[in-house]
Amino acid sequence: MIYDLTMPLFPGQVVWPNDPEIEIAPFSSISSGDAADISLLRFGTHTGTHIDAPSHVLAGGGGVDQIQPEKLIGPAQVLDLTFAQEKQILPTTIRQAGFCRLIPRLLLKTKNSQFAEDQRFHQDYIALSIEAAAWLIKEEVFLIGIDYLSIEPFDNADYTIHRMLLSQQVVVVEGLNLRGVPAGIYELFCAPLKIVQADGAPARVFLRSL
Amino acid sequence: MIYDLTMPLFPGQVVWPNDPEIEIAPFSSISSGDAADISLLRFGTHTGTHIDAPSHVLAGGGGVDQIQPEKLIGPAQVLDLTFAQEKQILPTTIRQAGFCRLIPRLLLKTKNSQFAEDQRFHQDYIALSIEAAAWLIKEEVFLIGIDYLSIEPFDNADYTIHRMLLSQQVVVVEGLNLRGVPAGIYELFCAPLKIVQADGAPARVFLRSL
Repeated sequence: MIYDLTMPLFPGQVVWPNDPEIEIAPFSSISSGDAADISLLRFGTHTGTHIDAPSHVLAGGGGVDQIQPEKLIGPAQVLDLTFAQEKQILPTTIRQAGFCRLIPRLLLKTKNSQFAEDQRFHQDYIALSIEAAAWLIKEEVFLIGIDYLSIEPFDNADYTIHRMLLSQQVVVVEGLNLRGVPAGIYELFCAPLKIVQADGAPARVFLRSL
Repeated sequence: MIYDLTMPLFPGQVVWPNDPEIEIAPFSSISSGDAADISLLRFGTHTGTHIDAPSHVLAGGGGVDQIQPEKLIGPAQVLDLTFAQEKQILPTTIRQAGFCRLIPRLLLKTKNSQFAEDQRFHQDYIALSIEAAAWLIKEEVFLIGIDYLSIEPFDNADYTIHRMLLSQQVVVVEGLNLRGVPAGIYELFCAPLKIVQADGAPARVFLRSL
């Protein structure tokens, strides 16, 4: 069984406030007499389901093309945190949900899942706390995914949590659709576009049942 | 062991003649005083390593988002055809290289691999013949990848081979980098961007040793 955790890309899909909108335009089209349909795409590096590279928030940080494939593919745990009331996920909540320290990739399913098909941006999404970021780094988790467009609370203009994670080479996956995915251990296939030295990239992300 | 079969995306990377060039521009940048680097991407649906959807050449054909994940992930055979002299791959060449009919995903490694890091376009690339396309459909192969920007000879302005394959829902993967990948059976992870109703999409493609 394969789950597709990827937000569909289309004009009008929700993006981070003031980020580029998604534009898709015909470049050639059969209906205009061309031999084939080809489209021209225009969007930002942090559109839809995407990866943040270290260079997103760290001057001189690595690009998205430098993330090792071995980090992107392999066992991952989906933790169901939809029971939690707090807006910022705490270490105790992660432990309470059954965090398995043997699995270095962690996908956080939160109440954000209710927004999965909502094209309106919600500022009050659930995000990681600084305490949880520090704790997960200590636990040697090297990939963290979350089900909204940022892993960091909306008000954190200084990107503290991004800096903590990305300076430790933790892969940050944002904009996952985890609605309908039960908690458990899976195999993760996380596939960002291979854009040279980019600060991030849209990705296709699949989970496969073990 | 994981092989990354993906062409890197950067301005100046080779594209199909007259297709949109790859453009990547800063949208916000730390060096200009912004809190984070974000980039604006602009390129065509058939850029770099990419998937062709049925709607690329068939009016009313399905979009790239409708391709089942189960087709994109699973066992694949890499066939080494670098010994072949002909410009169009024939069924006999595929058989001679050791085609295994039990594996429904086929990646064709040809002399094109020598162009893998060449930013000049080569019209005389090796492509599939009509006979081989018909034969592979009969053999129930449902994904075919090749190591250049088209699976069809450059002169086939009518897209005959694309029509044959895409009308049978065969997934066509173009622009693979198979240099350095030995012939054999692997697990394929083929991950096109999930662009709604698009005629194709850039993809990240990995192979894992079994």
